[in-house]
Amino acid sequence: MNTEQLYRQIRLKKSFLCIGLDPEPGKMPEKLRNAEYPLFEFNRQILAATHHLAVACKPNTAFYESHGTHGWKQLELTIAHIREYYPDLFVIADAKRGDIGNTSKKYAETFFSLLQADAVTVAPYMGSDSVLPFLDYPGKWVVVLALTSNQGAEDFQFLSASNAERLFETVLRKSSGWGNSGNMMFVVGATRASMLVKVREIVPDHFLLIPGVGAQGGDLDEVARYGMNAHCGLLVNSSRGIIHADSTERFALVAGEKAADLQLQMSRILAEKGLV
Amino acid sequence: MNTEQLYRQIRLKKSFLCIGLDPEPGKMPEKLRNAEYPLFEFNRQILAATHHLAVACKPNTAFYESHGTHGWKQLELTIAHIREYYPDLFVIADAKRGDIGNTSKKYAETFFSLLQADAVTVAPYMGSDSVLPFLDYPGKWVVVLALTSNQGAEDFQFLSASNAERLFETVLRKSSGWGNSGNMMFVVGATRASMLVKVREIVPDHFLLIPGVGAQGGDLDEVARYGMNAHCGLLVNSSRGIIHADSTERFALVAGEKAADLQLQMSRILAEKGLV
Repeated sequence: MNTEQLYRQIRLKKSFLCIGLDPEPGKMPEKLRNAEYPLFEFNRQILAATHHLAVACKPNTAFYESHGTHGWKQLELTIAHIREYYPDLFVIADAKRGDIGNTSKKYAETFFSLLQADAVTVAPYMGSDSVLPFLDYPGKWVVVLALTSNQGAEDFQFLSASNAERLFETVLRKSSGWGNSGNMMFVVGATRASMLVKVREIVPDHFLLIPGVGAQGGDLDEVARYGMNAHCGLLVNSSRGIIHADSTERFALVAGEKAADLQLQMSRILAEKGLV
Repeated sequence: MNTEQLYRQIRLKKSFLCIGLDPEPGKMPEKLRNAEYPLFEFNRQILAATHHLAVACKPNTAFYESHGTHGWKQLELTIAHIREYYPDLFVIADAKRGDIGNTSKKYAETFFSLLQADAVTVAPYMGSDSVLPFLDYPGKWVVVLALTSNQGAEDFQFLSASNAERLFETVLRKSSGWGNSGNMMFVVGATRASMLVKVREIVPDHFLLIPGVGAQGGDLDEVARYGMNAHCGLLVNSSRGIIHADSTERFALVAGEKAADLQLQMSRILAEKGLV
């Protein structure tokens, strides 16, 4: 999916919502836990209830790998199901990979050719050759971690270099030069919304993937105020706050309500900005 | 496997070799490529030919994930096979994971509980809570990326902070405080052997996992000169230089020869240091 197609979906759905598909069996109704493919079946019902409210979804690979081969199979089934039924959804494999070039090339094959995701998240620590192989796929995107929403972000991402630039700023500045705003996005945690001003000075045109709204404490209006650009330029993710808002057999219904709440706020924000 | 058990294997085998199990079907003999489980069958033969020459092995997850569910299955089979036949081998899952705490916990489950690896490599960019969940498993190890062997390492790892410390040094200093030399190791690329002096000032006691000897151009004597501590403290990895040194049906035999060459050098170095 290219930039224009993604913006079209944002305007059409009046939403810049990304739904984190991070299913935890312990938070599912028992009947579903005992299904042959509980993660897939859960996702299938979540998607049916929410797909029209979101423009993107983001399965985090950890929640599948932790079930071994059977989990990996369900990640494949989930993305194949989205490809078949919801071709309007942008699929981000939240994998946070990154390795030497030779190996990153294998990860790019995995997530783009094999799993058919639109985008994959990548950690920047190993530098350009760990990111470049993901840019060899036309129409695909790499999402580079810049400023994350967790406490540990303080440990290294805010380190000031001798040129007074903080590490996350250097990551944004350098890595934005490896691709362009049509094949690269950046992760910026919603719990640090005020930092978005600085982020937008460095990457005014790129999409930002904002995790941490909801369970992790971020605020949607703040994110939009500081992070939105003239075309929107945001994908805001909510995972647990939507998919595990309810653990009974009403989970999909409640997920639909939670997603609708966010979509309504987004619709208002987009209208205020004159984007819809 | 704990520190003392690992040192015992190093003295016993007169080796600190780690074999990178990164199998590529295109570099295998045709007969093997057509097997039901080519990656596993390849690894099985490599292990049979080399296990007595190495103290560790390191499957990189990318080489399995790129074959989807079928690849993941073969990673499981490979580690289960090692657990059954070669309990003296230390298994490092080279996964380079790292996510928010909640998610890193899932990765720790995956690699330690499910796959039964001894250690997993982790990227430090997201900080302490992305690493700490891996330290909750007694007898297991986390291997933190500090200084990698690729060209892209220049992009961020050498950035100088205002306190004149470079990023990889800050990573070593801070993250070494999250664990201890009995549950944490560091990746330091062999192509930067002279940097090992600085590394050893910060982490004198920790094991260092050194990739990049062989195909990536590192030199074993240099690595030992600058990186070895009083107990050895090194695991030196070679992947392609051993496992894909030959692509005919003689591949395992040749791998055994290549591993024996390295083990012989290591044996000499350990003797010179009075460690065996």
